[in-house]
Amino acid sequence: MILTITMNPSVDISYPLNKLVINDINRVTNVKKTAGGKGLNVTRGIKYSGIPVLATGIIGGTTGQYIQKELDNDKIAYNFYVTQQESRNCIAILHEGNQTEILESGPVLDDQDVSVFFQHYQSLLSQSKVITISGSLPQGFPNDFYARLIAQANKHQIPVLLDSSGKVLLQTLRLKDKPFLIKPNKDELQQIIQMDIDANDPHSLMKAVSHPLLDNITYVIMSLGKNGAFARCHNRCYQISIPNINVVNPVGSGDVTLAGLAVSIHENENIEVMLKRAMTMGMLNAMESQTGFVNMNHFDKYFQKVTVTAMM
Amino acid sequence: MILTITMNPSVDISYPLNKLVINDINRVTNVKKTAGGKGLNVTRGIKYSGIPVLATGIIGGTTGQYIQKELDNDKIAYNFYVTQQESRNCIAILHEGNQTEILESGPVLDDQDVSVFFQHYQSLLSQSKVITISGSLPQGFPNDFYARLIAQANKHQIPVLLDSSGKVLLQTLRLKDKPFLIKPNKDELQQIIQMDIDANDPHSLMKAVSHPLLDNITYVIMSLGKNGAFARCHNRCYQISIPNINVVNPVGSGDVTLAGLAVSIHENENIEVMLKRAMTMGMLNAMESQTGFVNMNHFDKYFQKVTVTAMM
Repeated sequence: MILTITMNPSVDISYPLNKLVINDINRVTNVKKTAGGKGLNVTRGIKYSGIPVLATGIIGGTTGQYIQKELDNDKIAYNFYVTQQESRNCIAILHEGNQTEILESGPVLDDQDVSVFFQHYQSLLSQSKVITISGSLPQGFPNDFYARLIAQANKHQIPVLLDSSGKVLLQTLRLKDKPFLIKPNKDELQQIIQMDIDANDPHSLMKAVSHPLLDNITYVIMSLGKNGAFARCHNRCYQISIPNINVVNPVGSGDVTLAGLAVSIHENENIEVMLKRAMTMGMLNAMESQTGFVNMNHFDKYFQKVTVTAMM
Repeated sequence: MILTITMNPSVDISYPLNKLVINDINRVTNVKKTAGGKGLNVTRGIKYSGIPVLATGIIGGTTGQYIQKELDNDKIAYNFYVTQQESRNCIAILHEGNQTEILESGPVLDDQDVSVFFQHYQSLLSQSKVITISGSLPQGFPNDFYARLIAQANKHQIPVLLDSSGKVLLQTLRLKDKPFLIKPNKDELQQIIQMDIDANDPHSLMKAVSHPLLDNITYVIMSLGKNGAFARCHNRCYQISIPNINVVNPVGSGDVTLAGLAVSIHENENIEVMLKRAMTMGMLNAMESQTGFVNMNHFDKYFQKVTVTAMM
């Protein structure tokens, strides 16, 4: 089973408006509310792939109950640590071709929550073969919290796939216990290793994924949007190219790419299949309007069109 | 006891932002979520006045549970008809001196809900001495629904105070069973009676509140903002003047004004006290930042400053 970790889930609300009128009342009838958070998109991607998956993290209050209700509707298994504090709403106003987002920071938790969630996490390890961690930490959690989760997983020889960025990713990479895989995009990796990356120069790409800060991380998958990805596995690098596709909504594509990687690791697939699976999942999501959704009927068609080239 | 009716309550969410950046991500930490809907402000105003009050209406889903939780915190008694459908969120983005609102229309209910709520309402009548009805109807409810509630209350000799506007108010006033009191503001009344009202001309004001469409409504209280109000009780008119105050947040002032009117009717106060009480409540609310809140410690001071003049 794959365990997915979403520490700060949300109820994502979208408001489609013809026009957003500032300093006035905007009435909206066609409201969509879904269970959000990067890790929940990963969970969906894994479930579409037919692999057993359990979602965990922290939810709370009536917003947390709404998240559970949505996951029940989607028949997704979960075992969250539940607090009294309300989970957050994330608002997307879709107006005049714009997407204006208002993201709540979510509940402020305390040391007690940190320690109780850690125990909760430990209780789930015996069932887990692969773990994914996605997104931001709740307010009040220490920056090294993901490193603690990874250290514990490493003790049990469970590979951890980490999709984080900024301070939290940097803090995690500086510590002794390494994730098995990271999946930054070019900008996120540039920020971490503090060097400019030229996406058209294989030497620049190789230098980036082989940066000393990334030592002892088995897989580094750098996504390059429509240019595919560049990956390092142990000491070998791979260029991945994808076909042109009709992008409808790219939100969540990185998350279902991570789902593809987790599925491959869970199924012991070889590196070529793994990279092709991951890219295919990301493309399938980008071709749909619904965030985190993939139509697996198109999987084989696009899987065939991804090419993986080992760099000599 | 006073029964307050709020057919379409909401969770009101306010997002204070230094700047609302269009087509980008706006992160917000200082989020406030409260139980909203005009009728719930009326309920609060009555409770601050120390009179027993029960809130009813329709709530549903996890948003409905949040509303109940907030009312529990405020120690407000309620007995809602509960559906599976999610109650609505109403968003206020406070940015650069603007208040940009996004109001969800709320759940779409059906004939079954109409009839079950009506039964629920009937079961509460025996305890009720006064009834207030505020705000809009849920989608799916017929425009004459408030008229049905009023007809039933009239059968039991329970006076109904109606605070509605537009199509629903017009439809209600055209039917045989009249509310005991209505409290439109100048614009709302103009829309209903289709005539221009000159707030500085007592004859215009008298003509407006004596319009044939308002026949058989015992009290018509037309609010005029900082110019106070103009009222008709049976065939007699009253000009009400209020002192200058420091307006902090006028939202909800009309609702607690209605609360003051309901309290007076419940307590059989005379017309002068009733009008002064109502205006005082509205002012006390406008001087506070919190919607629907009044500081009753200042009640006597402002009550003394309201003047009521009977028109000869």
